[in-house]
Amino acid sequence: MNHPTERVIVTEVGMRDGLQSISRIMSTDDKKRWIDAAWEAGIRSMEVASFVPAKLLPQMADAEAVIAHALTLEGLVVTALVPNVKGAQRAIESGVHRIVAPISVSVAHSLSNVRKTPEEMLGAFAEMCSLAKGHAETIAGLSTVFGCTLQGNVPYDDIGHITRQALEAGADVVALGDTTGQATPRQVGEIIDLVRGIAGHRLRSVHFHDTRGLGLANTLIALQHGIRELDSSLAGLGGCPHAPGATGNVNTEDLVFMLQSMGYETGIDMEKLIASRSVLEQALPGELLYGYLARAGVPSQFHESKVTR
Amino acid sequence: MNHPTERVIVTEVGMRDGLQSISRIMSTDDKKRWIDAAWEAGIRSMEVASFVPAKLLPQMADAEAVIAHALTLEGLVVTALVPNVKGAQRAIESGVHRIVAPISVSVAHSLSNVRKTPEEMLGAFAEMCSLAKGHAETIAGLSTVFGCTLQGNVPYDDIGHITRQALEAGADVVALGDTTGQATPRQVGEIIDLVRGIAGHRLRSVHFHDTRGLGLANTLIALQHGIRELDSSLAGLGGCPHAPGATGNVNTEDLVFMLQSMGYETGIDMEKLIASRSVLEQALPGELLYGYLARAGVPSQFHESKVTR
Repeated sequence: MNHPTERVIVTEVGMRDGLQSISRIMSTDDKKRWIDAAWEAGIRSMEVASFVPAKLLPQMADAEAVIAHALTLEGLVVTALVPNVKGAQRAIESGVHRIVAPISVSVAHSLSNVRKTPEEMLGAFAEMCSLAKGHAETIAGLSTVFGCTLQGNVPYDDIGHITRQALEAGADVVALGDTTGQATPRQVGEIIDLVRGIAGHRLRSVHFHDTRGLGLANTLIALQHGIRELDSSLAGLGGCPHAPGATGNVNTEDLVFMLQSMGYETGIDMEKLIASRSVLEQALPGELLYGYLARAGVPSQFHESKVTR
Repeated sequence: MNHPTERVIVTEVGMRDGLQSISRIMSTDDKKRWIDAAWEAGIRSMEVASFVPAKLLPQMADAEAVIAHALTLEGLVVTALVPNVKGAQRAIESGVHRIVAPISVSVAHSLSNVRKTPEEMLGAFAEMCSLAKGHAETIAGLSTVFGCTLQGNVPYDDIGHITRQALEAGADVVALGDTTGQATPRQVGEIIDLVRGIAGHRLRSVHFHDTRGLGLANTLIALQHGIRELDSSLAGLGGCPHAPGATGNVNTEDLVFMLQSMGYETGIDMEKLIASRSVLEQALPGELLYGYLARAGVPSQFHESKVTR
C-alpha cells in the first residue's frame, strides 16, 4: 500500500465549503490573503468560490473577484462550485479551470440543496457540460453517496445509476462527497470500487467530512483504493447547511501530515500551512479552528524519520 | 480486509491512562461507577489501575480497592499496570488477570518514566514474569516504539532487540504503545510486521494516542495487519506525564463506532457507551471530554445500513 514517490493532490476547499458554512462574511481581501497563503504553502488546487445567488449565500457574492485573483497564481488549478446552468455560465466566463456540480444521490438532499430532483439536476448538468466544453473541466460531485441525514440509506444501486447518468451527461471527472459526515471505512472501499467499475479513471477525488472522527481513516481507505485527489479545509472549517449535524471538512494540516508520513508527495510545506491559519484567526476572530497537528506540532524528528525508515 | 464475524477486544484504559494524566483525583466510588457503566455498555476488558507509589501518582492510591470491585464483574478481564517488581507483587496479590509492564525502547523515556534503562527494566520484568507465573498473564507494554519526544527517533533494530528480550524474559503478550502520539499509518504497518516476525501470535494489542488526529487511521492499519485488541479511553482521556505533548488516548466511542461500521463484533452498545460519559461529567466537572460520536450521534440508519449493505 505504500507508494513513496506518488503524488497526492490536496484540494483546499475551505474558501468555498468552509466559508459557506459559517454565517460571517470574509472580505474579498481576506479571501485573497488566504489563497495567497495556501499557495505559498504549496497548495496547487483550490475550490475558491461557488456561483450561487448572493441572496442565498452572501458569503460567495464576490466569486468573480476571488477567482480573478486565484487565476493570477502560477500553477494553481482553480475550481468553483456551480449549482445550476446560470452559475456554470458565470463560472465559465470567470475563467475557472474546473466546475463542480453537486449531484445528490439522495432525492431529499437534492431537493433541499439545489431544489431539483437528481434527475432534474442531471439534465441541468448535461447543459453545463455542453457550455463548459473546451473551457473548463466538469466534475460531477456526487453528494450524499455515503448516507443522507434527510433520506437515510442511499442504496448502492442508486449510486451506480447516478454515476452512469453523470458520465452520459458529459462529466470529465466524478468526485464522491460525504456530504453528511456518515462515511465509514468499509463502505468507502466498497463505494469507490463500485463507482470505479463504472467510471474508471474518471473517478478521481473524494470529499470527506470529519463529523464522526473518521475523516482520516476514510481517507486511508480511499488511498488504498487508488484515490489520489482529496478535498480538505484549513482548520477543518466547513459543513453543509442542508445536512444537519455535518460539521467540518477533513482538516488540511492533519491530512497533509498523514500523507507525508506515508511517503506521498504533496508539495506542501507543513510549517507554512500551519502558519497560514493566522489568516483565519485574523479574518474570523473567535471562530473555532480545528486541527490536531496545529496544536501538537510537527514531530521534531519527522524529516529524519522519513530518511532512516 | 473485512472480517464481518471477527471479534475485536476493546480494552478501556481510561481508569488508568486517563486518570493518571489529569491532576484531579477521582474517588474510589466514582471509579467503581465508571467501571460498572463500562461493563454495562458491554466492555469486557479494562486496565483499571497502576501500582505505583501513591506519592508519585496519588490518583492510583486505591488500586487494590478498584481491582477488588472490578473482579466482581462477570466476564471482565482486569489489567493493572506495574512499573516495578514491588508493584507486580501487589498486583498479583490483588488478583488481577493481567499485568502490563511499560518497557520503553527509548532510553531517555525509560529513565524518565521508570527511572531504569530498558535493560534494567527488562531485568525487573523477568522477575515480574516469574512472580506472575500461574497467577496473572504478563504483558510487555513496549513504549515509545513509534517515536519518542525525548530521544527522537527509535531505530527499528532497537524495537526488534527489546521485543526479543521481553519474550526471553517471559512475556506472555507483547503490546505496542504510541506513548508519545507520533505514530503514523505506514510506520504502524511496518512495526507490527517487524514485531510479529519476532513475537508471532504473542503480539496482541496496540495502544494509540490521538495527538495528531491519526489514532483511528493508525488503528485501521493495525486491524489490516491482524491486530484484534485495542486500547482506548472513554472521552479520549489520557496521556503520559513524561511525554510532553502526548495528549489523549484514542476515544473509545469513536473507535467502537468505526469497528462496528466495519462489521467487527465488539459486544459494546454504543448508546450505552455514550451515556456512560455522564459518569465522567459528574465525577470530573469541567474536565474536557473529547469525542466526535458523542457530539454527532450514531447515525439513525446505522443498523439498517449494516443489513442492506
